[in-house]
Amino acid sequence: MPISACIGENIWRIHVNVTDRKMIIAEISVSVLGEGSSIGRFVRVAIEALKKSGLKTLSGPNCTSIEASNIDEILNAVKAAHIAVFEAGAKRVVTNLKIDDRRDKSATIETKMKAVN
Amino acid sequence: MPISACIGENIWRIHVNVTDRKMIIAEISVSVLGEGSSIGRFVRVAIEALKKSGLKTLSGPNCTSIEASNIDEILNAVKAAHIAVFEAGAKRVVTNLKIDDRRDKSATIETKMKAVN
Amino acid sequence: MPISACIGENIWRIHVNVTDRKMIIAEISVSVLGEGSSIGRFVRVAIEALKKSGLKTLSGPNCTSIEASNIDEILNAVKAAHIAVFEAGAKRVVTNLKIDDRRDKSATIETKMKAVN
Amino acid sequence: MPISACIGENIWRIHVNVTDRKMIIAEISVSVLGEGSSIGRFVRVAIEALKKSGLKTLSGPNCTSIEASNIDEILNAVKAAHIAVFEAGAKRVVTNLKIDDRRDKSATIETKMKAVN
Repeated sequence: MPISACIGENIWRIHVNVTDRKMIIAEISVSVLGEGSSIGRFVRVAIEALKKSGLKTLSGPNCTSIEASNIDEILNAVKAAHIAVFEAGAKRVVTNLKIDDRRDKSATIETKMKAVN
Repeated sequence: MPISACIGENIWRIHVNVTDRKMIIAEISVSVLGEGSSIGRFVRVAIEALKKSGLKTLSGPNCTSIEASNIDEILNAVKAAHIAVFEAGAKRVVTNLKIDDRRDKSATIETKMKAVN
Repeated sequence: MPISACIGENIWRIHVNVTDRKMIIAEISVSVLGEGSSIGRFVRVAIEALKKSGLKTLSGPNCTSIEASNIDEILNAVKAAHIAVFEAGAKRVVTNLKIDDRRDKSATIETKMKAVN
Repeated sequence: MPISACIGENIWRIHVNVTDRKMIIAEISVSVLGEGSSIGRFVRVAIEALKKSGLKTLSGPNCTSIEASNIDEILNAVKAAHIAVFEAGAKRVVTNLKIDDRRDKSATIETKMKAVN
């Protein structure tokens, strides 16, 4: 994050350019087989685990997006969600993950949302 | 859709139970290879095509959800989006689709959103 | 398809380069919720429907690849597979599809396999 | 893995029941944006990294399946592949992962292949 300091009236202003944040955006969904056709309770457990990771999350109808500054944070959150669904009683869990990671340009959940809405 | 008619003061009221709508919810994303690392202009073309289909759409940071009452509507919308990206100049398009179709219980983008938020 | 035409002793050979087939390669998988944790019987029904489409198929541990010369063939095969799983008794079917479609260069299941093996 | 030892003629025979292996099967694919429409060289780098992990791999036309006995092995292999593609010069990498993890029944790449072929 570029930080520019301006001296004016003896005040240091730290300008953090919010558009220059090279975040990794990932999309996660979990599915559970063998627990009936309604799996909302498991999905909620997974989302809860993602939120506990401390990462920014955004849940849509089919998946949850998370945003992190490095791949380890993403994978740890995914692991936590996956395990949480087993701990909630599931016997077969299918976890889908899509990691969109760019180093050439800043991106956040917010900038990606704005780009298409 | 169950329609219940109530006679009261000689008025027929048609109650359409909005929660009993067995909609197919699909999630679509497009990717373009060979046109640089920023593909927002192609993604917007695809979303525009999905909207033109007349189906309900909801665009998130990584994908767009659509809702339809039958599979043909879903597939026609996906085809339109896929073709639109080529017409916008792309040479290689990778389109991802996930169709969640249940016949035992009503579901809409809205009910799925509420279930996890 | 390589076509060679031989006329007399002046032999004209039409060489259609077998690598010059611009096929669309798609990857399909189906999942069934509410029918127990083993869904092999439904997966086999879906694969059977894909094969009946007449398209080339290749089934791996997690998905089936199909190859077609246009998008309609792909979508019709996916529709047939999706419907077949419902006809086999499923109440909730989640079908995943990834369409890899390039117009700039030939590609087949075979060339894609060779490129990575 | 259940190991049964049979004493017969003073010989200990270790029978490892190969069908009782509760392996996690994952499917991985990588895509690269901004490096032209042909990305085979990056895909090969990713597959090489997966193989270096020591896990069993099987590469199909659209993705590579890997098999592991725990989730950490899967995620470490995915991380290695993802990073390797950046090290090969990519600026934007999209990595897809599907983890199929069941605790109620044994599964391997081989059993899953046999179930559908």
